[in-house]
Amino acid sequence: MEFDLIDRIRARVASRDDVVLGIGDDAAILEVAPGRQLVVAADTLNAGVHFPHGTAAADIGWKALAVNLSDLAAMGAEPAWCTLSLSLPEADAEWLDGFLDGFLELAGAHRVALVGGDTTRGPLSIGVTVHGLVEPGGALRRDGARAGDDIWVSGTLGDAAGALALLQRPEPVVAAACEAGPVLAAGPADATDEALPRLRPRLDRPTPRVQLGRGLAGLAHAAVDVSDGLLADLAHVCRASGVGAGIDIDALPCSAALRDAFDEGERRSLQAGGGDDYELCFTAPADRRERIEALGAATGVALARVGRVVDGAGVVARDRSGAPWTPGRAGYAHFAEPFAPAPG
Amino acid sequence: MEFDLIDRIRARVASRDDVVLGIGDDAAILEVAPGRQLVVAADTLNAGVHFPHGTAAADIGWKALAVNLSDLAAMGAEPAWCTLSLSLPEADAEWLDGFLDGFLELAGAHRVALVGGDTTRGPLSIGVTVHGLVEPGGALRRDGARAGDDIWVSGTLGDAAGALALLQRPEPVVAAACEAGPVLAAGPADATDEALPRLRPRLDRPTPRVQLGRGLAGLAHAAVDVSDGLLADLAHVCRASGVGAGIDIDALPCSAALRDAFDEGERRSLQAGGGDDYELCFTAPADRRERIEALGAATGVALARVGRVVDGAGVVARDRSGAPWTPGRAGYAHFAEPFAPAPG
Repeated sequence: MEFDLIDRIRARVASRDDVVLGIGDDAAILEVAPGRQLVVAADTLNAGVHFPHGTAAADIGWKALAVNLSDLAAMGAEPAWCTLSLSLPEADAEWLDGFLDGFLELAGAHRVALVGGDTTRGPLSIGVTVHGLVEPGGALRRDGARAGDDIWVSGTLGDAAGALALLQRPEPVVAAACEAGPVLAAGPADATDEALPRLRPRLDRPTPRVQLGRGLAGLAHAAVDVSDGLLADLAHVCRASGVGAGIDIDALPCSAALRDAFDEGERRSLQAGGGDDYELCFTAPADRRERIEALGAATGVALARVGRVVDGAGVVARDRSGAPWTPGRAGYAHFAEPFAPAPG
Repeated sequence: MEFDLIDRIRARVASRDDVVLGIGDDAAILEVAPGRQLVVAADTLNAGVHFPHGTAAADIGWKALAVNLSDLAAMGAEPAWCTLSLSLPEADAEWLDGFLDGFLELAGAHRVALVGGDTTRGPLSIGVTVHGLVEPGGALRRDGARAGDDIWVSGTLGDAAGALALLQRPEPVVAAACEAGPVLAAGPADATDEALPRLRPRLDRPTPRVQLGRGLAGLAHAAVDVSDGLLADLAHVCRASGVGAGIDIDALPCSAALRDAFDEGERRSLQAGGGDDYELCFTAPADRRERIEALGAATGVALARVGRVVDGAGVVARDRSGAPWTPGRAGYAHFAEPFAPAPG
């Protein structure tokens, strides 16, 4: 849904001379003063769509800011200020305090000042706009990838989608009928009990790769954050840059928790198509590998080379045998279906 | 609801050296570069709360931007860029096109570039963040009013609330039972038929007083836009400035349409307590009256002097006899009750 609508908007929008980069990247770049570029991103979370009903208020607060900081990270920008638009069904001070616990914890960690916004009555929805700064010309855009570039991914992929898959597993009739029992205990996979607590923090409290993004500003050719799924997000980079990409599906970084909870087929689909990880995917020339690995070490973020930018168009994934790999389900349709109400 | 929650947020927020003005005014002021101040405001409209269900998409688009530009006007800022966060129940291209008609018409009139945002699935909600620029120190804040200042109001007051009052009048049983008939034709007041078409544009398509606000930047001591109702918004100015205010209730500017549709008691309540007019209320020393009147003439906006800033605290309204006037209903509770579904 999202991209059709955004294309429709973009086709009609007039620009200004001081808009360096408008609709279509992770954030906009605005020339606010000579030699000073402002980076602006806005992302909204809706209950039941971007987080399961029943998610802890503090986790919602954290995530609402995290997904926006992740956009700034993907631009290589230094976060500075944010605004918050909060729609609440009722004025609930306890919920708000919890929300602020998570939101302000993350804001404090990145020295982001909350400077304004509004509160309105309505279905639970959180809109955040973040503002950051970059050196002129230093931003990481989607349109800079070049054939021959390595494709890198930070952290591990598929954990958030794995947690979501476990949450959405249909409950067996016996468990559903037994109100007192732990709802997920009788799930189809024996590993669910152990896996969910290990994976769910990745869904609820994603880590925006802000320091990594800032360090990449002088190193990478292009970057995007993985919010819709690696293949989908990388396709945006390829389209913007006029290139293609080859991905080694077996090189995608995988957490032990994901490996324990899913078979290889499920795992590959979650890693390649799962959204909400908020890792960075970026491209850089091969002669910068050492500097990039040093940056990963310095920022404490694991970095994996997972493919190569090529001439042409589109993203092709291959497994270790060299055979083309297609996901078991058609990507991760982030907005296609609202979450089922969360168990518990 | 709004102010309790905002106070709760403000109490916990950490600032930064480059935040000139944070939470609590119409917009925030950020020092983006030496000698360059960015003004940022964010306002959300929710279906059924900020506009009646069934409002035309183009009117919703216009209003979503207008209420934000009104915040910039109240700061004396020059609008530059905006982002749009759109939650839609379904991807509806026709609705979006209509929405953009209104949104972009107003954006074009003020040279505002739409530079980013997001679209998500959810109940209809429109979040806009606007960015403008002011000369350092030139912004109109709420905290600059001084005892002895004149209190001015632009345009006319109460029209938007008057339209809303007509829309919300209970339908007579006969009309409600007759699906084919015009729903409002049998309204309780004979004047409704004529008055609603004259008043409703003020509810659906408010005019942000951008040029006036920019002109006031060197003239006024303090300003606020009238979104919650004159007395309520002026009270914010008084509190921020540490002063009181006296209002001449009979001096409040009134449109002919409002005068025709309501008796004096209703009219005064709508003018003093009705929200959604998005006029500017500002204070300025008496020796600037001529320059202010010249600005009104130059920008084509009627300006009325409606009272005086005094030492003390609180806002007191008096009628022509000098007797204290209290509204028939306790202010305009903007978020207290969702709109009833709109007729038609």
